[in-house]
Amino acid sequence: MGLFSKDIATLDDLFVHTLQDIYYAEHQLLKAIPKMAEKATDPELKQGFEKHLGETEGQIARLERVFEMHGEKPRQVNCPAIDGIIKEADDIAGDVADKAVLDAALIAAAQAVEHYEITRYGTLIAWARQLGREDWASVLAETLAEEKATDETLTRMAESKANAAAERAVEPA
Amino acid sequence: MGLFSKDIATLDDLFVHTLQDIYYAEHQLLKAIPKMAEKATDPELKQGFEKHLGETEGQIARLERVFEMHGEKPRQVNCPAIDGIIKEADDIAGDVADKAVLDAALIAAAQAVEHYEITRYGTLIAWARQLGREDWASVLAETLAEEKATDETLTRMAESKANAAAERAVEPA
Repeated sequence: MGLFSKDIATLDDLFVHTLQDIYYAEHQLLKAIPKMAEKATDPELKQGFEKHLGETEGQIARLERVFEMHGEKPRQVNCPAIDGIIKEADDIAGDVADKAVLDAALIAAAQAVEHYEITRYGTLIAWARQLGREDWASVLAETLAEEKATDETLTRMAESKANAAAERAVEPA
Repeated sequence: MGLFSKDIATLDDLFVHTLQDIYYAEHQLLKAIPKMAEKATDPELKQGFEKHLGETEGQIARLERVFEMHGEKPRQVNCPAIDGIIKEADDIAGDVADKAVLDAALIAAAQAVEHYEITRYGTLIAWARQLGREDWASVLAETLAEEKATDETLTRMAESKANAAAERAVEPA
């Protein structure tokens, strides 16, 4: 798309495109989250990733409901943003040796994912309301609330223990 | 980095790496924001991008102060996340014909940028405090406050007029 045609003519087209973008992003996260869970050491963090994997499946099902309410077949479009955010998470995880420092890095990477989702769902909800579709907005708002709660949980884990544990790591002799 | 060595041993190393990551990101934004300003139609949005370009220059100067306080030379490391977010903004802008719909898309893209910065500065501040460096944290907190204010301004612009203007766009005959 983009090079020879302008495919997005209306706010509704833009809404659908962004829905396809986050639908792709959630599918990429289905693959990325188990790898993050595997790398995590703190049991609560590991469990948190596993719980969020289940939530992601539910969020995909909600997106499919919105596609259906809209009369569209669910479709993914490339989302370079989530690809970049996941690549950055992989890169940093590969650079960290100490387990506690890795946990702190994984929390930061997961918060970057959450913030991307928070901004996209926030935008989609505003556009749905503008289009007079409170029904789409209310389904998407359930997911937004989950993403915000996950972000807050990650902040609490970082500030209550993971950052302090990471600080105790020392340079290898 | 990453393939043959684990370069990040301590929380301080992770802090410096993330500082280098956001230092790269802010430099990429110095190039991206003027293009977004050029594409924007609404005068307030155009001005908002121009104002944020000035803020970005100040944010780079603050990062350089933190590098200096840390005793490091300012250095950039690749940040695939911001590259992806900017690429997505370019792609979507290239797909939208109507000027009002484009403004709505530009606001959404700018909010994705802000949310990335909010999460990264939030993390850096928490790590600086954990490392006992309230001096680094307070410089970074000035930038975080600016990013949050920009995000709120963008929400206000979207909800007060840009989304409504975009909704009036119709399919070309």
